[in-house]
Amino acid sequence: MTTRDACMEMDRNDPLAFARSRFSLPDGMLYLDGNSLGALPIGTAARIAHAVAREWGHDLIQSWNRADWIGLPLRVAKRLAPLIGAGEDEVIAADSTSVNLFKLASAGLKYQAARRVILTEIENFPTDQYVLQGLASLLGSAVELKAVPREALLASLNDSVALLALTHIDYKTGAVHDMAAITAAARKVGALTLWDLSHSAGAVELALDDCGADLAIGCSYKYLNGGPGGPAYLFVARHLQDKLTQPLSGWMGHAAPFDFSPHYQPASGMLRFLSGTPVVLGMIAFDEGLKTFDGISMRDVQAKAEALGDLFIALVESECAVADFIVASPRNGAERGGEVSLRHGDGYAIMQALIAEGVIGDFRAPDFMRFGFAPLYTRYVDVFDAVAKLADIVRSGRWREDRFKVRAAVT
Amino acid sequence: MTTRDACMEMDRNDPLAFARSRFSLPDGMLYLDGNSLGALPIGTAARIAHAVAREWGHDLIQSWNRADWIGLPLRVAKRLAPLIGAGEDEVIAADSTSVNLFKLASAGLKYQAARRVILTEIENFPTDQYVLQGLASLLGSAVELKAVPREALLASLNDSVALLALTHIDYKTGAVHDMAAITAAARKVGALTLWDLSHSAGAVELALDDCGADLAIGCSYKYLNGGPGGPAYLFVARHLQDKLTQPLSGWMGHAAPFDFSPHYQPASGMLRFLSGTPVVLGMIAFDEGLKTFDGISMRDVQAKAEALGDLFIALVESECAVADFIVASPRNGAERGGEVSLRHGDGYAIMQALIAEGVIGDFRAPDFMRFGFAPLYTRYVDVFDAVAKLADIVRSGRWREDRFKVRAAVT
Repeated sequence: MTTRDACMEMDRNDPLAFARSRFSLPDGMLYLDGNSLGALPIGTAARIAHAVAREWGHDLIQSWNRADWIGLPLRVAKRLAPLIGAGEDEVIAADSTSVNLFKLASAGLKYQAARRVILTEIENFPTDQYVLQGLASLLGSAVELKAVPREALLASLNDSVALLALTHIDYKTGAVHDMAAITAAARKVGALTLWDLSHSAGAVELALDDCGADLAIGCSYKYLNGGPGGPAYLFVARHLQDKLTQPLSGWMGHAAPFDFSPHYQPASGMLRFLSGTPVVLGMIAFDEGLKTFDGISMRDVQAKAEALGDLFIALVESECAVADFIVASPRNGAERGGEVSLRHGDGYAIMQALIAEGVIGDFRAPDFMRFGFAPLYTRYVDVFDAVAKLADIVRSGRWREDRFKVRAAVT
Repeated sequence: MTTRDACMEMDRNDPLAFARSRFSLPDGMLYLDGNSLGALPIGTAARIAHAVAREWGHDLIQSWNRADWIGLPLRVAKRLAPLIGAGEDEVIAADSTSVNLFKLASAGLKYQAARRVILTEIENFPTDQYVLQGLASLLGSAVELKAVPREALLASLNDSVALLALTHIDYKTGAVHDMAAITAAARKVGALTLWDLSHSAGAVELALDDCGADLAIGCSYKYLNGGPGGPAYLFVARHLQDKLTQPLSGWMGHAAPFDFSPHYQPASGMLRFLSGTPVVLGMIAFDEGLKTFDGISMRDVQAKAEALGDLFIALVESECAVADFIVASPRNGAERGGEVSLRHGDGYAIMQALIAEGVIGDFRAPDFMRFGFAPLYTRYVDVFDAVAKLADIVRSGRWREDRFKVRAAVT
């Protein structure tokens, strides 16, 4: 097996090792949940404090111009675009992932007027399914929502499909869809693709433009380190932007919002995908989160995510055999995102015991223990130490204590 | 005319005078734009700093439970409810005003299945009109959007009207709709009412429940002091909550979001009006903003808003006669919100000259100079000093300087 010393050697050779100092990480904690909430970047506290005290408190309303609050949705997007393989003019930050999905699914459906099927997979992230169900319920017979098993996706693509809506990386297993192949297959039958990148951006290398992706959405608060519940983003391929209109047509999407005309006239480009006033503090935290990627090669990020996951799987199999964990994630790193999931009937209690001892992962029903390896701040030695703790817990059986069985509100 | 000494005497007798110390206001500025962006409460900077460094930075994912981030939308609402005359179980904080309008307009329309008209007024706040236009465009023949002049509203109410959507206080003039009378008239024909309270909450006394209002939305960042672009809120009358479903049905509105079921099942009560993950920093700033109303009587707020506006109008008429300002706001304080607007062909330049000398109001096309009198921190003497400055500027003609003519991005 790989020794702790070997892991420390891997850290010394890690081209991303320097990035860890960009985060404020609590002492004594092994944080393996950056796939759910990214760590705090060192610059965020001061930047937010400045925005509150100076921009809001002192300059007040004038900060919409002076601090360019009004430009935040596009400024943030400019920083994000290269991380997802998009042009700077193809991205904008706004609202939540759920709300943005509604905008783009509506817009795509309207554009594909002769087609009525939205195709998705049964295992898509629940909120994506719920939003598509909400849209389908609102539009009645104008839309048919088809959720099929992953294996049936390609065979379900035909010329009735307006939109193929998928989460690029599965939230429970970390399994990655082949974006290039699926996009090409969708394009062949004239369907638009709409990718949810929430579990991808910042963890793996993405190439929206090179894949010919049409639409995408994603959140800021996982691998992008934008802070709890921070604003989300949208991507629309350049050639589609001015052909699409979305129904959450608030004033920030208007061609001239400060003319206060009574009639909506969409802005050109990505601005038309805005709705209400941008949530300034959240946008600023998002912007600061993205700075943690300054000068970082996404190829290095992808490679490290794979290597950390590979190491975790190998160590679990050699050290935790007693627990009969099932590795729920793909073993091939190229088919896996930034997380590895283990399935176990007592996964909830085991995870609680781990958390109590400072190894922070999370749990997803019914039996998935998730471990996220954010490449910017997770060390190889962290993986070693986490598995050592996990092995110790499963060997000792101390996860059987009653206190680990009570479910918290958010699990 | 009223003297400066008389204004200082009014401040000494002001039952809300103590509330000014709840804000951090910049020296040397007369801030009369709390109707656009409320001032910074003194507690906000420390609370946000704690949320960033401790809750996010140190406790990380555990703060969803430990700091009850997950409960923020309802905790904030509990603080807000008494300010708008609603029950604590009738309000929730979420998303933007525009997004929330879409949710409730869709929900109301679906509930009123036999009716297809959404009635509004031509002068409604633009983003409200745009969102209703977006909904109408999405639903096609299932909805007819009728925007009529203010005077024609009551006559346009009939049994084809599903929903009457109005902004309670006009953003350009501060004119107040009679919520009780209009709601009663709508109810008589079976129409639901949907009120936008963005320019009302925190400035005037509201009584949603007593008026029998059905639905309402509003923003946090004006008189409620929740910070730039902070999250908005929704109100749904208790008896309607479980009868309505909204299409932006993200996971936070699910009856059991952490079961990750593939099928949407709306939560009961206000939770079903949530969509995505709550924007934590914005919610915390909103919560802190609402604390500035602790122990404050909304009757006192209403009375002071009226008195400040009355004083402003009287002083403008006696001191600024040379400028031929048209008072665009109702002269009867009870028919006016927290702002007074003056119309003038050179209003933009005059406002810029005022701002350059430290009196901050704003401008709305084509010719409205707006002055907001947030009752919690505006003093009578501020009104006196602002009008003295305005009088000096219009008498001197120095607003004619070229530098005051260039329009900024946000006006």
